[in-house]
Amino acid sequence: MGSVKALGIGDVRVGKGFWGDRQRLVAESVLPYQWKALNDEIPGAEPSHAFENLRIVAGLSSGELYSFQFQNSEIGKWIEAASYSLAREPDPELEGRVDEAIELLGAAQESDGYIQSYYKATTPDKRWGDLEWGHELYSGGHLLEAAVAHYSSTGSRKLLDIMLRYVDCVDKAFGREDGKRRGYDGHPEIELALFRLYGVTGDEKHLKLAEYFVDERGQKPCYFDAERATNGAGKRERDFDLDYFQAQAPAREQRSAEGHAVRGVYLYSAMADYAAITGDARLREALSAIWESAAERRMYVTGAIGSQHRGERHTIDYDLPSDRAYAETCASIGLVFWAWRMLLLDPDSRYADVIERALYNGVLSGMSADGTRFFYVNPLAAIPAVARARFDQDATKTRRVQWFGCSCCPPNVARLVGSIGTYAYTYDSASVWVHNYISGEAVFPAEAGGMRVAVETEYPWEGRIALRIAAGGGRRALRLRIPSWSASFSAALNGRRIESPSVEKGYMVVDRAWEAGDELILDLDMTVHFLFARSEVAEAAGMAAAQRGPFVLCAEEADNGPELQGVEVYPSVPAKARRGLLACESGIEVESLRVEAAGRKALPTPPGAPLYGPSAPRYGEGPVVLIPYFQWANRAEGEMRVWLRCGM
Amino acid sequence: MGSVKALGIGDVRVGKGFWGDRQRLVAESVLPYQWKALNDEIPGAEPSHAFENLRIVAGLSSGELYSFQFQNSEIGKWIEAASYSLAREPDPELEGRVDEAIELLGAAQESDGYIQSYYKATTPDKRWGDLEWGHELYSGGHLLEAAVAHYSSTGSRKLLDIMLRYVDCVDKAFGREDGKRRGYDGHPEIELALFRLYGVTGDEKHLKLAEYFVDERGQKPCYFDAERATNGAGKRERDFDLDYFQAQAPAREQRSAEGHAVRGVYLYSAMADYAAITGDARLREALSAIWESAAERRMYVTGAIGSQHRGERHTIDYDLPSDRAYAETCASIGLVFWAWRMLLLDPDSRYADVIERALYNGVLSGMSADGTRFFYVNPLAAIPAVARARFDQDATKTRRVQWFGCSCCPPNVARLVGSIGTYAYTYDSASVWVHNYISGEAVFPAEAGGMRVAVETEYPWEGRIALRIAAGGGRRALRLRIPSWSASFSAALNGRRIESPSVEKGYMVVDRAWEAGDELILDLDMTVHFLFARSEVAEAAGMAAAQRGPFVLCAEEADNGPELQGVEVYPSVPAKARRGLLACESGIEVESLRVEAAGRKALPTPPGAPLYGPSAPRYGEGPVVLIPYFQWANRAEGEMRVWLRCGM
Repeated sequence: MGSVKALGIGDVRVGKGFWGDRQRLVAESVLPYQWKALNDEIPGAEPSHAFENLRIVAGLSSGELYSFQFQNSEIGKWIEAASYSLAREPDPELEGRVDEAIELLGAAQESDGYIQSYYKATTPDKRWGDLEWGHELYSGGHLLEAAVAHYSSTGSRKLLDIMLRYVDCVDKAFGREDGKRRGYDGHPEIELALFRLYGVTGDEKHLKLAEYFVDERGQKPCYFDAERATNGAGKRERDFDLDYFQAQAPAREQRSAEGHAVRGVYLYSAMADYAAITGDARLREALSAIWESAAERRMYVTGAIGSQHRGERHTIDYDLPSDRAYAETCASIGLVFWAWRMLLLDPDSRYADVIERALYNGVLSGMSADGTRFFYVNPLAAIPAVARARFDQDATKTRRVQWFGCSCCPPNVARLVGSIGTYAYTYDSASVWVHNYISGEAVFPAEAGGMRVAVETEYPWEGRIALRIAAGGGRRALRLRIPSWSASFSAALNGRRIESPSVEKGYMVVDRAWEAGDELILDLDMTVHFLFARSEVAEAAGMAAAQRGPFVLCAEEADNGPELQGVEVYPSVPAKARRGLLACESGIEVESLRVEAAGRKALPTPPGAPLYGPSAPRYGEGPVVLIPYFQWANRAEGEMRVWLRCGM
Repeated sequence: MGSVKALGIGDVRVGKGFWGDRQRLVAESVLPYQWKALNDEIPGAEPSHAFENLRIVAGLSSGELYSFQFQNSEIGKWIEAASYSLAREPDPELEGRVDEAIELLGAAQESDGYIQSYYKATTPDKRWGDLEWGHELYSGGHLLEAAVAHYSSTGSRKLLDIMLRYVDCVDKAFGREDGKRRGYDGHPEIELALFRLYGVTGDEKHLKLAEYFVDERGQKPCYFDAERATNGAGKRERDFDLDYFQAQAPAREQRSAEGHAVRGVYLYSAMADYAAITGDARLREALSAIWESAAERRMYVTGAIGSQHRGERHTIDYDLPSDRAYAETCASIGLVFWAWRMLLLDPDSRYADVIERALYNGVLSGMSADGTRFFYVNPLAAIPAVARARFDQDATKTRRVQWFGCSCCPPNVARLVGSIGTYAYTYDSASVWVHNYISGEAVFPAEAGGMRVAVETEYPWEGRIALRIAAGGGRRALRLRIPSWSASFSAALNGRRIESPSVEKGYMVVDRAWEAGDELILDLDMTVHFLFARSEVAEAAGMAAAQRGPFVLCAEEADNGPELQGVEVYPSVPAKARRGLLACESGIEVESLRVEAAGRKALPTPPGAPLYGPSAPRYGEGPVVLIPYFQWANRAEGEMRVWLRCGM
């Protein structure tokens, strides 16, 4: 491993507050709901068939296999999320469900370790026969992540042992040795799962297999081409060429984020794991270039990536349309995974800034306030009637839905929320970094002086973070991230203001011999600020997006009426922010922000006026009301916009 | 026929000037070029196979039939355009080609009159078996229009006689009588062609057949559904439902322009013919409502229609994206056909204004300055790299191309340009209308006093139109259209200014006893003006489009550099217009306009600045250079924009 390390799921307790509330929501609502969804028990929802497929394979049910070939991945993510929840607090009912799922997986496992509940051909002789599209290793990877998470969270080896047999089966099938397939999965995932496994087992076999999969991708001649020739597949359709699979070149030769956005971030995560373990300079060089491309040329202001539905993919630099954003929830989640691993390679706040941008915006927008409705696609502007009418927005919903036939996103949100504490801190022998401000407590190992840190904060609603050393310490640098959006900040140590605090790579550094009881207060600037995109971004020309703290804001029809294209904001006038409750259509009220930005709005053109005429629009002056983007579409269906025209 | 009548192709001579130049281009370049294209003789162009298919069917060639099922329509349009050119001036080589084409059609005709060079199944027993998609009657309709045009232009009955046999064959096959198919074509066209034929033959059989096809469309149960059941066709895909074929309801019950834009305007043209002949009030009521929807809610400022590639269709009101405009050249041409027929029903300038808007913008943009390159899709904004990258712009080209596999548009432009003189005047017993200003001469029949009118003008480059009565006259009202864009105008009769000229339904009325030598001068206001879209048009919010005379203007990268999204114009500052030559990439120089509008442009964001940052863009003040939209993409490939942000 690289010299900077992360904490485990058991090392961080998330306390009350923004994330604690969400972890409770996951435990009380999301996980039970998703269990039902995966068991096809939600009336009116698209059926999943995930567990039913497993039961059929295990001989416990006699129905017919159907649905997508990757449904096991959703079971894996659900078990992973449930495991994190069990690490947080015991829940016998949930534990029973997890055990039931694990037993089903065991029952469905073949004697040689292979597990696949549903494969397109449903014939055993087709095993590994369609790596390009079959998602066998992808599904296995998610089950493997679940196994690692379950083991780390509960100490139980039940699922881990099942999946170790699965990995042996994979290891026998894949590699450069004679008699093995020299292939890799169309959807990266097994790679990062194997690196995670290696982190638990330390077994070189697992490391080598992970490395093999990363190394082999993109080699020429391309495995997928040979496979297609064998299968008699036709020409690849536009937008689904080798770059869709990140197989256009070997990992070390890639220099930009291409293709399917989720596949990309899963691969780059594995590449970063690989680089951290081996110190491979060529991988790091590739990762740096790919990161620049993703974060500085192809990312939405909400931390979303993937600007096109077809291929769920990147297009070209700066092509970031708001209404046609694919911006898959999973892609923002995967971006968090990748950025976190970049942070382990290089503790620079630019990675943590992206984690925060994605988390509080593009990730959380994927779930309704009550945890039972989900977005797959997260546009930055929507007009419901247009989204319904246009083919180029046919994946875009303007209401979150109960479930998707392919429901990769909902349990992915659950597992990220469940493990959010592990994305807050890193350490090495000399420093402890605080990347994300989450109230609760963290316990560091001996290498970090056995420090216990308690954080109290109402972040992200408020900018004050109080960090108390609860135990341990010794001389080391505490490094607290100063988010790039915070125009200024102040800090105090044990009640005394720190003059000219030192900032390195985006972190305020307080280097001293720490003692229990020491208290560090950080005050970030929570003024509503406006962001402008680079001039290359056609979609945002002449526009600004408002942000408060880590929350990107949006205007909704519920507050501003329709025709939001007519809204202008005045970025030079300070906006007013007020905390308050958002009354959701589901009947609940949730914490929110109501921001009033100075601006105006075009008055509706009078009836009878021509479609195109010489009269410039008339405007009505008045504040524009904004709420956090992630909370959009929790009220009556209507228009929404993040980028707003700038006036004044 | 209604009381207002049009002139025939032989009644109007188009003189030197804008349209005369274009008719010469058609004669000298376009028709020879398209002849080669239809004969697969253009190196590098998509092959047409149109004539080769005919030769194969006629037994003159032994190749294999291929390409689209509607290639005969392109032969029809080419013959029609060539016929108009022959009416203008003799050309033995062209005449020889026309005769060759007609002979081929005759040779390919079956003994019962049926003509179809290529039908999907290529088996005779499938005749009329796929009306929904087969385009048999559509292709026949274009050949029929060609026959009428050839007869009217040359007096020859060669093609007319062939097509009369074809019409007999159609008449035997279709209708409500026992033993006939009660169907209609998926692509309207035969209807308007039959009405045109009736105008020449006066044969009630032709009228009844035309009426049948209009009346039957949209009746329940739907013929297409029955046909699909027979053919075992699956569910219709999204965007290709019955409204795609304007078969969602009977013609008289339709109230908005729906579905495939070209199909729509061809049907509405036939409906207007029908209403003109029969005075059917319910058809007129439907046409009024459909017109409102098309022209006031679903039309681009360039007179283009069809805002989505998939289904080449309308979506919903006010959904008019610039970069994803389908805006097919043929749709603007068909809009001219339809608007012209509305004008015959009701001489109101709003129809002529749309004709002009479409002609000078959305139609002419379909052809390069040298007449050898064509656009199918006419976007109102383009960034070449984005258009190449995005699936939702995959029909959009930023260079005109040599030919299309389905090349409906190029010969459609040619036939409209060739017949442009017939779109200038109408008359009844009391009035002569001048709708479009084209230098040349028109001869009216006895009903209009045998008047001869000579027009001298540099319109559309200049706003002065001189209209001289060359012969005939007597008491009648001359009605000259005042385009809606002309903020003011002045007129003089025989050198004396007309004080407070009377304007009715958009036409200046000069009602007097006319004598040979009378001269009427009209001066329109050619000031560059800015148009604003209604507030519902999201795409144009905060933006303006500049126009001079009938020309909508655009900014091109060639004049303004890249990142045109950063351009702002100041509509309140008068813009400067200068006539001049546009140096085209093809090597020729053509008449053009260069407009300098006051404005500014965002400076490129410096390298290294973040993708999203707190710094508002900086601007460089300076004029924005605009040229007529229809001439875009005649220089180096680059960005283009019609709607520009408004500053000041």
